[in-house]
Amino acid sequence: MKKPTTKRRKEFHEHRSRMNEKILSCGFKDYQKFFALDNKAYLEGTLPAKMKELMGLVASMVLRCNDCIFYHVDRGIEEGATRGELYEAMNIALIVGGSIVIPHLRYAFECIEELMPDNT
Amino acid sequence: MKKPTTKRRKEFHEHRSRMNEKILSCGFKDYQKFFALDNKAYLEGTLPAKMKELMGLVASMVLRCNDCIFYHVDRGIEEGATRGELYEAMNIALIVGGSIVIPHLRYAFECIEELMPDNT
Amino acid sequence: MKKPTTKRRKEFHEHRSRMNEKILSCGFKDYQKFFALDNKAYLEGTLPAKMKELMGLVASMVLRCNDCIFYHVDRGIEEGATRGELYEAMNIALIVGGSIVIPHLRYAFECIEELMPDNT
Amino acid sequence: MKKPTTKRRKEFHEHRSRMNEKILSCGFKDYQKFFALDNKAYLEGTLPAKMKELMGLVASMVLRCNDCIFYHVDRGIEEGATRGELYEAMNIALIVGGSIVIPHLRYAFECIEELMPDNT
Amino acid sequence: MKKPTTKRRKEFHEHRSRMNEKILSCGFKDYQKFFALDNKAYLEGTLPAKMKELMGLVASMVLRCNDCIFYHVDRGIEEGATRGELYEAMNIALIVGGSIVIPHLRYAFECIEELMPDNT
Amino acid sequence: MKKPTTKRRKEFHEHRSRMNEKILSCGFKDYQKFFALDNKAYLEGTLPAKMKELMGLVASMVLRCNDCIFYHVDRGIEEGATRGELYEAMNIALIVGGSIVIPHLRYAFECIEELMPDNT
Repeated sequence: MKKPTTKRRKEFHEHRSRMNEKILSCGFKDYQKFFALDNKAYLEGTLPAKMKELMGLVASMVLRCNDCIFYHVDRGIEEGATRGELYEAMNIALIVGGSIVIPHLRYAFECIEELMPDNT
Repeated sequence: MKKPTTKRRKEFHEHRSRMNEKILSCGFKDYQKFFALDNKAYLEGTLPAKMKELMGLVASMVLRCNDCIFYHVDRGIEEGATRGELYEAMNIALIVGGSIVIPHLRYAFECIEELMPDNT
Repeated sequence: MKKPTTKRRKEFHEHRSRMNEKILSCGFKDYQKFFALDNKAYLEGTLPAKMKELMGLVASMVLRCNDCIFYHVDRGIEEGATRGELYEAMNIALIVGGSIVIPHLRYAFECIEELMPDNT
Repeated sequence: MKKPTTKRRKEFHEHRSRMNEKILSCGFKDYQKFFALDNKAYLEGTLPAKMKELMGLVASMVLRCNDCIFYHVDRGIEEGATRGELYEAMNIALIVGGSIVIPHLRYAFECIEELMPDNT
Repeated sequence: MKKPTTKRRKEFHEHRSRMNEKILSCGFKDYQKFFALDNKAYLEGTLPAKMKELMGLVASMVLRCNDCIFYHVDRGIEEGATRGELYEAMNIALIVGGSIVIPHLRYAFECIEELMPDNT
Repeated sequence: MKKPTTKRRKEFHEHRSRMNEKILSCGFKDYQKFFALDNKAYLEGTLPAKMKELMGLVASMVLRCNDCIFYHVDRGIEEGATRGELYEAMNIALIVGGSIVIPHLRYAFECIEELMPDNT
């Protein structure tokens, strides 16, 4: 699954990395522990990493966090999620969360468009 | 995957069925359409039904709805979800949603205990 | 619009009154000011009181608060809301808020059933 | 109720239309069904369309979604909502949802200012 | 600050302990790590433990979780919070979170009444 | 506690003041009453103003409102909150609210960086 490094993707990751770096080096150690738990939650386990990323995406959509949506769409695609799988997962989020999720569904489509430009 | 019909499970389903019946027969047709879309979202598709139920469970936990948690734990187990898979999905919900999810994690454990009494 | 005083309705109002009394007499004056603003928001104004109660109901359903749902269904009916009007308002809440609202839609139907027993 | 086509309004509608088009033509049919239900919820019925838009506005404000706020302020004004009616509906949202709604009240005022520039 | 062990308090703690025990002994280690971080967040630090419990109370009220409210009212009182301090913290929650918080304010008053029966 | 007037801070306050002015002068008096209650909730009382601002910050973070976060970080620093105190309060918000709070933690760090540039 080859992915182009788009401008938005690059900017997103740079800002995210720069600020995470500040959080993790501020001297308050429990932030590091929470971030470690957060990373670990999505690692391949009994459930495949791809499914975990899609679960993270559903949670991010019903809680309506665009940064989190970008992150999990990106990671899901890295783990091999197809458009069809993304659509089904996002549909669960739409049904559970309702029309208030629609602006975030639009955003998720923008992310997919950018991260899977060749319509694969 | 044989499951005992516990008292809570029976009461939950009876109340749910009785009230859904009232909603679906009240004469306002769009409730029926929404309920149909809701049911359809979890059917086996590109994603397996089990994974969809776990996604519904994660969404229900971060949005903190016990009725929805019971429903998706029950359905997930029917679709073959193991304790290990439930734990990993619920951990994603806990990490995404934070300690405010803990009372619902306790509730989910009660549900699992009841629906999988033999510790399988 | 004659309404029977059901058991649930009576218990709800007694508990609500007893605890509100404690809050309003605890010596912290700003609670009183907030409660006064809250009451005033639903008074007949440029918008009819009935419509305001239905707006309060929609807000209560998407925020998923059963106590608030009972209160606004009760008050809406007092202001003359019909079943048809309640169904349309609750449908907006269901569409905006998604399937996570369904347990509260079931609850709202229980309230209507109790407060409008004669199916008027 | 004549309305100027402001830049923000035009951009909002163009982006919204472009992305909705992508969602509705992606091949996943249940998105279409949900969008149809969503549109239908606000049509003139037993409740007037104007009141339904104001209910959608209240729901959007307590759930704090600016895109949805813009949409319902715009549609509410199209259906004839006056400033006084908007203020009363938004006040219900403010009281139900609390000070966390204030940034969205500021946004709603920007929308009204833009969509009703002549202070009618 | 002597406190009676009331029935509700006892039942709350017993249920909470029993279920937490199940969660922490289920074999999924990251639950333990999250629970440890959760406990640590409220320990006396640069901020006094009492203030941290009041912060936890405010968060619990705006997120509307009764179990969490009981817990932080109980712990806040153990750390020496007075009625006046509780009222001011709960007022912040009421103002930030709005009238949807009121049922939880009533619940918090029930907790205080039970945990501080002598009106101290 | 001397603070530079940064560009973001200036713009934030100008926009906020301009729109609040419109809200407070629109002729709908109850907005004024709510805003007055809101301001009063954070005044020095039984609880110190600094602690109240930190409570407002925790509430703003778990409810995920960046405008509110900026406001309470700014006011908290004005009332003498140190980095260590901010970190502990923000950690409570992170633990209660979960990883969905992380983008807002990054934002809060940007605010602190801007409002306390000298690392005091």
